[in-house]
Amino acid sequence: MLENKDQSLTPISSIGEFNLIRKLTENFPINNSSTKKAGGDDAAILNFDGKDIVVSTDLLIEGVHFDLAYMPLKHLGYKAVIVNLSDIYAMNATASQITVSIAVSNRFSLEALEDFYSGIKTACALYNIDMVGGDTSSSATGMIISVTAIGHVEKDKAVLRSGARPNDLLVVSGDLGGAYMGLQVLEREKQVFQVNPKNQPDLDPYSYLLERQLKPEARVDVISLLKDLGVKPTAMIDISDGLSSEVLHLCNEADVGCDLYENKIPLDPQVISSCEEFNLDSTTIALNGGEDYELLFTVSQEDFPKIKANPNLTVIGYIKEKTDGCHLITRAETRIPLTARGWNATSDQE
Amino acid sequence: MLENKDQSLTPISSIGEFNLIRKLTENFPINNSSTKKAGGDDAAILNFDGKDIVVSTDLLIEGVHFDLAYMPLKHLGYKAVIVNLSDIYAMNATASQITVSIAVSNRFSLEALEDFYSGIKTACALYNIDMVGGDTSSSATGMIISVTAIGHVEKDKAVLRSGARPNDLLVVSGDLGGAYMGLQVLEREKQVFQVNPKNQPDLDPYSYLLERQLKPEARVDVISLLKDLGVKPTAMIDISDGLSSEVLHLCNEADVGCDLYENKIPLDPQVISSCEEFNLDSTTIALNGGEDYELLFTVSQEDFPKIKANPNLTVIGYIKEKTDGCHLITRAETRIPLTARGWNATSDQE
Repeated sequence: MLENKDQSLTPISSIGEFNLIRKLTENFPINNSSTKKAGGDDAAILNFDGKDIVVSTDLLIEGVHFDLAYMPLKHLGYKAVIVNLSDIYAMNATASQITVSIAVSNRFSLEALEDFYSGIKTACALYNIDMVGGDTSSSATGMIISVTAIGHVEKDKAVLRSGARPNDLLVVSGDLGGAYMGLQVLEREKQVFQVNPKNQPDLDPYSYLLERQLKPEARVDVISLLKDLGVKPTAMIDISDGLSSEVLHLCNEADVGCDLYENKIPLDPQVISSCEEFNLDSTTIALNGGEDYELLFTVSQEDFPKIKANPNLTVIGYIKEKTDGCHLITRAETRIPLTARGWNATSDQE
Repeated sequence: MLENKDQSLTPISSIGEFNLIRKLTENFPINNSSTKKAGGDDAAILNFDGKDIVVSTDLLIEGVHFDLAYMPLKHLGYKAVIVNLSDIYAMNATASQITVSIAVSNRFSLEALEDFYSGIKTACALYNIDMVGGDTSSSATGMIISVTAIGHVEKDKAVLRSGARPNDLLVVSGDLGGAYMGLQVLEREKQVFQVNPKNQPDLDPYSYLLERQLKPEARVDVISLLKDLGVKPTAMIDISDGLSSEVLHLCNEADVGCDLYENKIPLDPQVISSCEEFNLDSTTIALNGGEDYELLFTVSQEDFPKIKANPNLTVIGYIKEKTDGCHLITRAETRIPLTARGWNATSDQE
């Protein structure tokens, strides 16, 4: 699909840079009144009527952040948007615009890039996002994706990482570890495929895990839910690097400690069964596996009645004084210091 | 300098990703009141009090957009900022924030990255820009830089590419072709160096050209000047791909034609002499060489008295009806159709 060997495909070298980005984005609609001009000029023009604006940016690199051997380009486009929207929602903000720049080599066909942009378009439609800029460029080697997401929030209503206070409850949305286990399944299938390309794997038992890895969602629904429940988190972060790393971020930023309860960490049955199959400890996976894009936040104790019955939210611990440190309380009720071993793109890779 | 062979240098693998970006950006001051929170959270928070916001983004790739063989990292950091600010000024806007993400392999030392960020910091200080976000990541091969620039302008005062009208004057700031000729000099010296590393080149005759290539400036001074002169351009674009390409953009966006006068194109004496030395036609270089980051704009005829005596501005032609087409009027007074042969990252490179 990627290599441009099919003569019926259109080589991108036949299209100029200016025409390429125009062709790839020509059918993107504009839905937000805050978008005054998108694309086709030196910069996009936005207006948010005095609201606070939030801006987040991410770089995704082939071979580091994704593997095109098992990541379809449409899914990759979708995921590249989701990863950035998640950061905007983690500010308690409404995401409204993105810019997307890509660099690819000429081995990509126009049709392959159209697949990628169709994934972006799907995510934009689902999350009500306007694509307002970006460019295309060449790359000597792998594919590079740069996304900047922009959102807005009522003045001074953004939720920072730093607001957690002792006795606040530590809450997580959804469940954890699924995206990491999905990656393990895909890595295994890639190896099987390399040995025997005719093997037809049965991936049904891993459907949830694969969806978590290949088509993650950003929890805009949780932001709406909290608004409906009348709950404003005291601090919030999205879980991209693993639970323990993000919990430590919240504690460090606020100069507080915490107790995190192992038996409260929400796990999907497929995570539990696949961890058994792969001989991995599910708690370790939930704590250190990344890319779940759930929201981790703290709320004051008085908000507990509002959230306790909600199936989307799980109280997994509470904030303590800094002198108490950050601990995991295991099922055996031992307290072990929480450490971050999350995915680290800089130090793990050459 | 780049390769981390010196044992006294600090390998970036010894620093976590979170600590790395914090360490690299810890001394960046915040100067703009529109920056409410920069870095250290899921997103930056900005507020522009209802003004229009302009956003532009660029991806710079080693081996495509720059060559570390002759581009010092400090200069590269500076230039990466300038390239993006130029787009903001081309909207007639004030640039105020940037985000910078980079991906590098472990062959870079911490000290090398500090050089890069010191260039960014210098540009931020000179142009009064706040660095509000970004991240660091690993790259399997070359260095990748992604910059997003954000600026603001009074509501509905942005100048688009599309506003040129017949009889408007076509005006350019500064002079053209210098950055391209600087690149030719550097490429030649690189080849000489590969043959004879001990050769000490005399680069004095090319000092202006090298500065144009290695340390370009964005024409914020021209934006201020136009404001002081009481001139609002009808259309504007920055010259990143070469004059002819940008003139055609302005004409296409506004559905107009133009006459561009060869003998009016501003050239520095070093461009003229180096073109003779390299056996190149200086008009071709000015028309098609990129990276000058001058501003190209149109003004109505009645503004001519305000700009005619200014040494920073040159009237190089005027806008005509679309049916008249776009032409270069040569020194010999022949009319030849204007074509874009500007640098094109997508189609020229593998």
